[in-house]
Amino acid sequence: MSSDCLFCRIAAGEIPCTKVHEDDVCLSFMDINPISPGHTLIIPKRHYTYVMDMPPDEAGHIGSLVPRLAAAVKAAVGADGLNLLENNGRSAGQVVMHVHFHLIPRWPGDELGFRWPAKKADFGVLKQQAEKIQAGLKG
Amino acid sequence: MSSDCLFCRIAAGEIPCTKVHEDDVCLSFMDINPISPGHTLIIPKRHYTYVMDMPPDEAGHIGSLVPRLAAAVKAAVGADGLNLLENNGRSAGQVVMHVHFHLIPRWPGDELGFRWPAKKADFGVLKQQAEKIQAGLKG
Repeated sequence: MSSDCLFCRIAAGEIPCTKVHEDDVCLSFMDINPISPGHTLIIPKRHYTYVMDMPPDEAGHIGSLVPRLAAAVKAAVGADGLNLLENNGRSAGQVVMHVHFHLIPRWPGDELGFRWPAKKADFGVLKQQAEKIQAGLKG
Repeated sequence: MSSDCLFCRIAAGEIPCTKVHEDDVCLSFMDINPISPGHTLIIPKRHYTYVMDMPPDEAGHIGSLVPRLAAAVKAAVGADGLNLLENNGRSAGQVVMHVHFHLIPRWPGDELGFRWPAKKADFGVLKQQAEKIQAGLKG
């Protein structure tokens, strides 16, 4: 635990939160700066900066909770849809440098949109990228 | 498996993909319409429309893979950061109605930004929402 990490301090109970779920591995609470009504966070209690730093069992535990938690969040606010979002790095929009998963309820016409433009890929490039990723998985 | 579901057909090998990882539960492959270079998808092989429909063990299995897969994707393309994104419902930007997790590599100044505006919350509202979510978790 890092004493200057906001989410470590929340996990330690030093800073209050509006709790939704807690177990040995993780804590879920309402985002105090919601993107939409019902915006909820899930954090591991232990400090990891990025999801890439998490041990598989803790990431798996959080993953196993997501269906039930996402359903409860969506139902609680009567949302139409929901985004699961987790940002790694400043360039990805991460602000608090303790890994956190956003559950963001959505409604038609909520004007949040989905504004990331996609481009058609070159298959040769995709193949090269896939080979590099596979090599990384083996390493 | 649904014969008119694109991702079921990819999982069944009826439609080719640029594969990155495969096991009994899930398949990971390059998105053919990448938001950024290295954009990779993870799907369960079984058909679920939304993450809320997934059994905890399959969602947990995918969650446990994310750290290693995200690290391999990020390294393969030399990215600075990475977003994990999973959209549930048309209002959340879901296009293929078979649950899929996006791994989106990011770079400073890539102009994808993070454009969802946050607003300061009313704590009374947060508490009401948390109570409804907790009730849903118990139900």
